[in-house]
Amino acid sequence: MAFDIDPVLRKDCHLLGRFRYAYLLLYRHRPIPWFILVPETSETEVVELPHDDQLELFHETSILGKFVKVTFRVDKINLGAIGNVVRQMHVHVIGRYESDECWPGVVWGAPLVREDYFVDEVERIRQQLVDWFGREVFTPEVDNA
Amino acid sequence: MAFDIDPVLRKDCHLLGRFRYAYLLLYRHRPIPWFILVPETSETEVVELPHDDQLELFHETSILGKFVKVTFRVDKINLGAIGNVVRQMHVHVIGRYESDECWPGVVWGAPLVREDYFVDEVERIRQQLVDWFGREVFTPEVDNA
Repeated sequence: MAFDIDPVLRKDCHLLGRFRYAYLLLYRHRPIPWFILVPETSETEVVELPHDDQLELFHETSILGKFVKVTFRVDKINLGAIGNVVRQMHVHVIGRYESDECWPGVVWGAPLVREDYFVDEVERIRQQLVDWFGREVFTPEVDNA
Repeated sequence: MAFDIDPVLRKDCHLLGRFRYAYLLLYRHRPIPWFILVPETSETEVVELPHDDQLELFHETSILGKFVKVTFRVDKINLGAIGNVVRQMHVHVIGRYESDECWPGVVWGAPLVREDYFVDEVERIRQQLVDWFGREVFTPEVDNA
């Protein structure tokens, strides 16, 4: 069965590539390095995933979090699995700066004045992911169009 | 070295007991079953915990989430590790109802008119945890006073 990333997520984000289990999206707001993992599942609750899938999703969340922390030199990582509006399972891995517009509040529901990335910035982040993880772990080419 | 739960968390929550790694708190707002895990660590980022501690925290988050989903018959589980204000590591496991006052927004930062539990309600939830997990997994008696 074909898996499609939710249209709202697709519209709000750049598709960067994928890990073994989850696609990786980048929210279109460059002041805040906001990544979203979309695991290939029709389940909606992380805690109800089969054990091994849960472990893999936690693993990808963890390694992505470390990448964000170091690469963007953020002050704090915010993790969240919410899904009240977009029901397709997705996990937020967000790098926060004490100087960002939402700090110390959460970004969800905050009235952001959207500032999208420039194309070469998205390309640079994709390359940083490849350099950090290697292509065995992170695949920058995906055909979920 | 003695581990103390952050005073803000202590004030905002009831201490229910503990799992192997994390203390379990209940946020003082009965319309929303809002649980908080406080792992016994001085680290502040989940993604920077040693591998085994991370796995244990994810495990406790997962089994608690299942308990909340079933016991409170909620419509959605919201998971979050934020820590922008209270830096001591803590993980939110929140049962959400489509009829609750914050839906579909997140609860963090929402202006809640606090409605604390009655004492016997807290006792009942503690007993439900013991019945669900057993005392080998969840310990209702703790001396972190």
